Amino acid sequence: MRLAELSERSGVSTATIKYYLREGLLQPGRRISATQAEYGDEHVRRLRLVRALIQLGKVPVATAREVIAAAEDTSLDHHWRLGAATWALAHGREAATDDDPAAEAAARTVNALLEHLDWRHDQELGELSPAYRTLVAAVASLRRLGYPCGVAQLLPYGRLAAQLAVSDLDLIEEEPTPAAQIEAAVALTVLYEPVLLSLRRLAHAEESARRFTGGEKPA
Amino acid sequence: MRLAELSERSGVSTATIKYYLREGLLQPGRRISATQAEYGDEHVRRLRLVRALIQLGKVPVATAREVIAAAEDTSLDHHWRLGAATWALAHGREAATDDDPAAEAAARTVNALLEHLDWRHDQELGELSPAYRTLVAAVASLRRLGYPCGVAQLLPYGRLAAQLAVSDLDLIEEEPTPAAQIEAAVALTVLYEPVLLSLRRLAHAEESARRFTGGEKPA
Repeated sequence: MRLAELSERSGVSTATIKYYLREGLLQPGRRISATQAEYGDEHVRRLRLVRALIQLGKVPVATAREVIAAAEDTSLDHHWRLGAATWALAHGREAATDDDPAAEAAARTVNALLEHLDWRHDQELGELSPAYRTLVAAVASLRRLGYPCGVAQLLPYGRLAAQLAVSDLDLIEEEPTPAAQIEAAVALTVLYEPVLLSLRRLAHAEESARRFTGGEKPA
Repeated sequence: MRLAELSERSGVSTATIKYYLREGLLQPGRRISATQAEYGDEHVRRLRLVRALIQLGKVPVATAREVIAAAEDTSLDHHWRLGAATWALAHGREAATDDDPAAEAAARTVNALLEHLDWRHDQELGELSPAYRTLVAAVASLRRLGYPCGVAQLLPYGRLAAQLAVSDLDLIEEEPTPAAQIEAAVALTVLYEPVLLSLRRLAHAEESARRFTGGEKPA
């Protein structure tokens, strides 16, 4: 298909498609003349992923390029390609922990949590992992505010996260090829975050109504 | 205590404290002379909440003011004060769903999910709720990308969210007064979001290592 049809099928304007091509976010089409190129279904699919990363996931352009590059690096084994791709995703709320006296205590709590959960892989990676650093910063913030946030409070969250990971990876493994699995891992990591957070808030409203307004328990 | 001590105890600069006072985010101190005021522990506590909302939760100043106002509105019953407070919190990733043909189908899926979960309170509120709209937008995005996102995929997330809500509300109810519970509801809603998202990503890395690198299952 030509550029105009690619735009129509993907819902991305031709100006934006040209921008993504220039930025290396979209692979070039097959050149058929000095001014025209032919695009395929893989371009439609890629465009949707780029849009999801940038528009829904708020990933900066440079990071989106890294995510896509990692996903295509066949020199890495499958686990590491999945990891490198999701690794690059933004952690919007990662706070600085340098010079923070609470951060060291928070790191000890997180380490104890990982040991309780028997998450050996994450224990090995430790603070190399952006997610680990985000977690330490969040725990330190809770502590500084005087809210309880020890292993006892974190453990239910960790156990539920482990259950989520199983169903997330099941979904990802339904994709037919390793490349499609990596794309799905990126998209599902980002796209299910607002699902999870909004469901948690809906569940809060529901639980609050049940506790404080005498609402009926479900049959 | 005077302004200087308040700054020292809260870790917030005097310039920022004055800004929060001007913006109505911090209640004025008890005036003891033309240029000096006396502050108490309630100011230290409030300052920490304001910082958490603005710095960690990325809540805009105007919204932080609404959150605090709602938390203090004694004309509302407890459930509604909790709800009004957390309601005002930013949903960073809420996407526009107007003119979106996928949004209507997504709303039907979300409604079916709420019915399955027997979340009657949320069913009644429907699209009045920011969390509901965020969820619909997220489901529509997943669908547009061609990823499976029906009741079957959402139900495990919903069930886990319901479990989280029970432990979250248990934590909130440990606070001694209704006002402190509202403050805790706001802080814990915002502050546990990065905890939850980072634990999910750590759990993904762990589960991926187990599946794709022959890592041992936990004993």
